[in-house]
Amino acid sequence: MKISIAQLNYKIGNFEGNKDLICKALEKAKKEGSDLVIFSELCIPGYPPLDLLDRVDFIEKCDQTVREVAGFCTGINAIVGSPTFNPDPEGKKLNNSALVLSEGKIIFKTNKALLPTYDIFDEYRYFEPEKNFSIFSIKGIKIALTICEDLWDEQPFDNKFEKSRLYTVSPMDELSRYNPDLIINISASPFSYTKVEAKKNIFISKAVKHKIPVITANQTGANTELIFDGASLIISPDGKIFRQLGYFEETVATFSLEDVISGATTYKNIVYEPVSLVHKALITGLRDYFAKTGFRKCIVGLSGGIDSAVVICLASEALGHENVKALLMPSRYSSEHSVSDSISLAGNLKADYEIISIEKPFSAFLETLAPFFKERKTDVTEENIQARIRAVLLMAFANKFGYILLNTSNKSEAAVGYGTLYGDMAGGLSVIGDVYKTDVYKLARYINRESEIIPESIIRKLPSAELKPDQFDTDSLPEYNILDSILYQYIELQKPANEIEPDGFEKLDVDKVLRLINYNEYKRYQAPPVLRISSKSFGDGRKMPIVAKY
Amino acid sequence: MKISIAQLNYKIGNFEGNKDLICKALEKAKKEGSDLVIFSELCIPGYPPLDLLDRVDFIEKCDQTVREVAGFCTGINAIVGSPTFNPDPEGKKLNNSALVLSEGKIIFKTNKALLPTYDIFDEYRYFEPEKNFSIFSIKGIKIALTICEDLWDEQPFDNKFEKSRLYTVSPMDELSRYNPDLIINISASPFSYTKVEAKKNIFISKAVKHKIPVITANQTGANTELIFDGASLIISPDGKIFRQLGYFEETVATFSLEDVISGATTYKNIVYEPVSLVHKALITGLRDYFAKTGFRKCIVGLSGGIDSAVVICLASEALGHENVKALLMPSRYSSEHSVSDSISLAGNLKADYEIISIEKPFSAFLETLAPFFKERKTDVTEENIQARIRAVLLMAFANKFGYILLNTSNKSEAAVGYGTLYGDMAGGLSVIGDVYKTDVYKLARYINRESEIIPESIIRKLPSAELKPDQFDTDSLPEYNILDSILYQYIELQKPANEIEPDGFEKLDVDKVLRLINYNEYKRYQAPPVLRISSKSFGDGRKMPIVAKY
Repeated sequence: MKISIAQLNYKIGNFEGNKDLICKALEKAKKEGSDLVIFSELCIPGYPPLDLLDRVDFIEKCDQTVREVAGFCTGINAIVGSPTFNPDPEGKKLNNSALVLSEGKIIFKTNKALLPTYDIFDEYRYFEPEKNFSIFSIKGIKIALTICEDLWDEQPFDNKFEKSRLYTVSPMDELSRYNPDLIINISASPFSYTKVEAKKNIFISKAVKHKIPVITANQTGANTELIFDGASLIISPDGKIFRQLGYFEETVATFSLEDVISGATTYKNIVYEPVSLVHKALITGLRDYFAKTGFRKCIVGLSGGIDSAVVICLASEALGHENVKALLMPSRYSSEHSVSDSISLAGNLKADYEIISIEKPFSAFLETLAPFFKERKTDVTEENIQARIRAVLLMAFANKFGYILLNTSNKSEAAVGYGTLYGDMAGGLSVIGDVYKTDVYKLARYINRESEIIPESIIRKLPSAELKPDQFDTDSLPEYNILDSILYQYIELQKPANEIEPDGFEKLDVDKVLRLINYNEYKRYQAPPVLRISSKSFGDGRKMPIVAKY
Repeated sequence: MKISIAQLNYKIGNFEGNKDLICKALEKAKKEGSDLVIFSELCIPGYPPLDLLDRVDFIEKCDQTVREVAGFCTGINAIVGSPTFNPDPEGKKLNNSALVLSEGKIIFKTNKALLPTYDIFDEYRYFEPEKNFSIFSIKGIKIALTICEDLWDEQPFDNKFEKSRLYTVSPMDELSRYNPDLIINISASPFSYTKVEAKKNIFISKAVKHKIPVITANQTGANTELIFDGASLIISPDGKIFRQLGYFEETVATFSLEDVISGATTYKNIVYEPVSLVHKALITGLRDYFAKTGFRKCIVGLSGGIDSAVVICLASEALGHENVKALLMPSRYSSEHSVSDSISLAGNLKADYEIISIEKPFSAFLETLAPFFKERKTDVTEENIQARIRAVLLMAFANKFGYILLNTSNKSEAAVGYGTLYGDMAGGLSVIGDVYKTDVYKLARYINRESEIIPESIIRKLPSAELKPDQFDTDSLPEYNILDSILYQYIELQKPANEIEPDGFEKLDVDKVLRLINYNEYKRYQAPPVLRISSKSFGDGRKMPIVAKY
């Protein structure tokens, strides 16, 4: 039997567009003599549809699209993912279904049993879990069809406090009673740079346990924060990887099931540097945010620092240098190299830029406020005014010319609140808001891997907000390598305060950092959506109370 | 048997403070000869603790606090709510538990079985549901102890597409096998102005069905967006309300169970005007946001319009007029009455105010941008600059003097994106972001119920943003009564487009309004937390994709 995996990039709610993608893949697979094409979880509406699932007309459109795709399945079978109405009188209104289509009909249907409801996932919000398990056959091959988490009944967690068996059911144990010949898993599994190997191992362990092949189909592309790496797998019965589809690539791959079973693998495991995958992920996130919203052009404020430098390089690669505009907005406190370095960078990228001094609006604000502030000392107020003036200028360009403002805050800053709300925290999309400062440096080095795009002086200078004379980040924050280690242990690993290894740092200072993280929840609440590349990013996946005693 | 309901106002994570509240209530109940005090759901950590539940040290503190409260239960029994570690090897790491405490010990424990996971609720994110049901006895009275949603196995939904039986289990049907004498329900049930009667009816129906009394204990007070109305109920076996505790009031009420059973009710149902409850809710939300964050003073930009007028009146009532500061920030487009009406209003409230022209910064921005904008026509860019200058000024005062900026956007504006990001959409808390414009008028009339606090001219003038000459809201939006009706049908009732009654309005225009709602998701994503008073507010309870085809 010939099987194809369709690893595609869907847009949420774009039923016509998604159907076209699916039908083109079916066409290609037919030409390649395929018997079965596997599409990803919820491919019909695109993933994640969120509360669009609460709208009856949205589900009706899913139904209609499934029927249309089924009509296209002549001489070929397809597995697609779609929400369907739960036929039972009780429970959630929907199921998260995998549907087998053939000759205009739905010939088999099963629903997701394990509904991830943690981090960014909230599937029990919408779906009733499957309780009855069964298999289906194509050309005499008995297939156990599972949906993403269904194979993750046993999973490693970063948070030690979590149980490794998060569910009381194991769908594959139930399905194994029917002695299937093959496990298929359709998924919409977002990228996380720490989960690349863990994902492979989950599938390998199932192949080995049940001594049959595992074939997975993941979606790719990005929908706002979430970036899907694709990397769909074909695993032989002895747990060897037969083939892996490309990271962040749309592709339709056809292969012979007999080859998989015979174990004729020629696959070589390529260990990717995490930074190269993070780089691809962010490019994908940027590209799709623009492609799917219909915007073409972005604007970035270039400070002369490493964060905005990395963001503009990513944007230039994702959107083309002709679609990138930079504003250089020096103040009375800006160093000369801030402007000259930024000009070099824009030049290297062939990106259009303007230099706009913020002096006039800054003076006007100071004058306007002087009668009220009187003898009060200069403090963070005046620093924030500068950051906010820059946001006003950037947004003015965005409004006048139709740019999307890219936010350039990194995860370390966002964590400790080192940023100005309505100032440098502004933007339509946070590009590196899930990248710790130390990893921003790694990205910069990676961007410069072939030639010096980011001037070396930008990479080497001490981080500074330049909002008052001789200001450096380390005046009020620990060194970034120490800070990032604390942040990772607290945010990703969710360690209690007393278990965080301060890495040579004072215990007292660890507590101070944790207090900063918690105190600044109110700022992050109003931050733009963040491209997610880790297992715990700020945003919907981390829901912390604003008003609480920490 | 004497029973007390403790309807209290907890702060999330404030273990010492919550314990003190609980112990004082126990003390009072003891003096009143009570045998059992009922506290609300998750009273130990305060509700909603959100992802603090992912932190093992947080749960350990809950455990510790429960033990301390148990030690205080001498000669009296208490029911408290707390997360507990799930002892089973599989499943979610926690249970949402009700614990019966007596003489230093936990004498009974049961867990929530129905875990609301919709709208603002996400309990399956943390908790494993109860599957084994049992009852306990105090003084020979057999008690069926349930937690909030456990009694809501059958519930009315606004969205017709939802099933009325959202769960496949009915905890009370299971518990009824033990022939209990009494149903107790502990809850943390947030206020919604449309749910006041529905809540009563749920409890009444359970009393009538099982022919035994129902006693409920809800929390009160607010935690960021969520406002809890208290209004705990005692219902007699024939479904009559024996007593209802006050709305939004902290109280400990003791009564004799025999009186409840004998049906000796003297309760008179008071039908509250929704506007009076909404008013109380917003005051509670404001008061607790400040009390629980430790801030005292707020700042409000007064435009001369009705929204900011209502917000400052609510703030003055919640925080005291001495803690309210108003900024009047006229521009070249402001009408004279904007300033004079605002001065009258501030005077009526005895609130401190300053008049600050935005002309200097506005001119400075126009000058700074002129070389780049060249011959381009004036458009929404220049309107947004004005709104953003005002945000810079308000935030400068907030930063310099320690005010919290209150946001004054209403729900109708937020819905259609009639507001400037980083401008009038700024603020630490959105006070009326869940109040439709037509209801803002009702609130204004209610505020003026005894004397004219809000000048009549503010109530009567045509809504205008005053960002360009002769601008009125109705230039680009339908009349607010028509708009709000469409919004309510789409947002609260989640009707499909073709079922929305346009109320004399053109079908074409309904579609335009729906497009505006969906298009502006990116703005609302960055809005401040909104005090929630409806069944569907913007914020965490409404998760819509930003990048999607609607």
